Amino acid sequence: MSEDALIRKYFSFDANASALILGPGDDAALLRLPPGVCAISTDLFLQGAHFDSNTDPEDVGFKALAVNLSDLAAMGASPVCFTLALAMPRIDEPWLAGFSRGLQGLAQRYGIALAGGDLSCGALAATITVLGTLEGEASALRRDAAQVDDAVGVTGTLGDARLARLFPDRAGIESCVARLQRPEPRIAFGRRLRGHAHAAMDVSDGVLLDLRRLLQASRVGARVELAQVPLSAPVAAELSQHGNWFEILGGGEDYELVFTAPEHAWDAVQAAAASLDLPVARIGSVIAGSELHVTHDGAAVALPAELGHDHFTNPG
Amino acid sequence: MSEDALIRKYFSFDANASALILGPGDDAALLRLPPGVCAISTDLFLQGAHFDSNTDPEDVGFKALAVNLSDLAAMGASPVCFTLALAMPRIDEPWLAGFSRGLQGLAQRYGIALAGGDLSCGALAATITVLGTLEGEASALRRDAAQVDDAVGVTGTLGDARLARLFPDRAGIESCVARLQRPEPRIAFGRRLRGHAHAAMDVSDGVLLDLRRLLQASRVGARVELAQVPLSAPVAAELSQHGNWFEILGGGEDYELVFTAPEHAWDAVQAAAASLDLPVARIGSVIAGSELHVTHDGAAVALPAELGHDHFTNPG
Repeated sequence: MSEDALIRKYFSFDANASALILGPGDDAALLRLPPGVCAISTDLFLQGAHFDSNTDPEDVGFKALAVNLSDLAAMGASPVCFTLALAMPRIDEPWLAGFSRGLQGLAQRYGIALAGGDLSCGALAATITVLGTLEGEASALRRDAAQVDDAVGVTGTLGDARLARLFPDRAGIESCVARLQRPEPRIAFGRRLRGHAHAAMDVSDGVLLDLRRLLQASRVGARVELAQVPLSAPVAAELSQHGNWFEILGGGEDYELVFTAPEHAWDAVQAAAASLDLPVARIGSVIAGSELHVTHDGAAVALPAELGHDHFTNPG
Repeated sequence: MSEDALIRKYFSFDANASALILGPGDDAALLRLPPGVCAISTDLFLQGAHFDSNTDPEDVGFKALAVNLSDLAAMGASPVCFTLALAMPRIDEPWLAGFSRGLQGLAQRYGIALAGGDLSCGALAATITVLGTLEGEASALRRDAAQVDDAVGVTGTLGDARLARLFPDRAGIESCVARLQRPEPRIAFGRRLRGHAHAAMDVSDGVLLDLRRLLQASRVGARVELAQVPLSAPVAAELSQHGNWFEILGGGEDYELVFTAPEHAWDAVQAAAASLDLPVARIGSVIAGSELHVTHDGAAVALPAELGHDHFTNPG
């Protein structure tokens, strides 16, 4: 089957997005975007680095898009469309069909269009670029806007994906495996945070590493209390037995949001989260300086050299 | 060196684009686009398929962006910015430095910004997504808008890149090698074609294959006279000796434009091309039906089963 025919068969799912004037099949797609600011982000999703040959292709399709949508969520943007560049070593139609189902399911949930793509022969890898918009006047959630005395908040629970990576066959952690396979981008909450939070980013490489990036961009420091970090029951059980906090929190792939908001906005942040049935937790405070101070039940904790997952210093 | 540091070192070149509000380094880049229609396109550029391990990394950087810009040219769009997703098996700083130089040189020539990217560990591959805009009222150059009795035109000369691929060490074809390594996206001409041409696409996989795609999208046929196809001196010499037209024209990688325009617009098309010192040639006419009839000096020529380069039926 030719490249053209494959694209028609697996990647011509219904647009559903009013913004799309011309979809895949021409040299470029054409869009009419609402006025305002446009957000764009791209992420690689590679076999060997982000998934392996045993991963259900439907989960690969879902997650390849989800991690990109998570970047838009962290800016407070609303997704509009995406492009897909897919390399695969040979045509594997059952794999393509599964990948397409996973991708399409998530795209339809957010009403976003596949605006075009490319398919080529190479090591299995999906690169997705997402385009979103920020309407209205409230500013985007940049990572360089945290202010001293802000509260540091996180959504959901952290460490679930890492537990699932470490112990894929352990009984009783099915909820963690589900979060590893199908992370939920926090699009709705990101939109609600605008106007309340000062700064935000998504937790893709480990909460402490990502928070430190946010602090560096904002030229501030923070205190974080590990006992306040929100944990699911399986992760809490693992930590109470083995206590390896940095191993669990440093694995990344949480795709929650870490954000800072002024004290006076915290009630509004909690109300926004409650309206979405999404837990938020306050894990610390922004301080002057450039240090990240971590305590556990009030006692200082020394940080390891590697706080999280760097794609080159810790490949795989 | 960490992913963050590598991105700062090699991919923080000056934006130069007034549209960019927030560049690389946050979860997403932020843009303020001019009102109008937005065009988006993505292309994979893979070692093994599109370049090899001997290719100068500066040429890889240039061409990875050029082939994407060529897609915008074929819509008549003006490029605004691009994203880059780069996978490489290990950090190779000399390679990264060369790649960055090639990319930056072309980006600066068009005043377009690198709006963000991702760097990960995997088989060497660069995926670029370009964003462009179409101002004003004249419509985009779609491939489904050719009309019966349109002239079929092409820019530049065809087959140069293929000759360079076939005989990389042949003396006297340096100009062909240069076109293989650094194809020139026809951005300015694409913009001028709007309002004159009905349909256009870029010639990436071979002029006859790409033209047939255009005809199929437009539900029309065409007659093409091979003797009218514009050739450089080295390609003309090769063809006069060996006469293997389909081998030479079917290799793709020309990155010229093939377009259709009504008779009355042809003078304006030629004037636009002349003002850019770009040759254009009329190679045939659009006809009713769905057939592509090819002649050589008026004699019918049978078409081979494979008219050009399909990324899966002819991998490599």
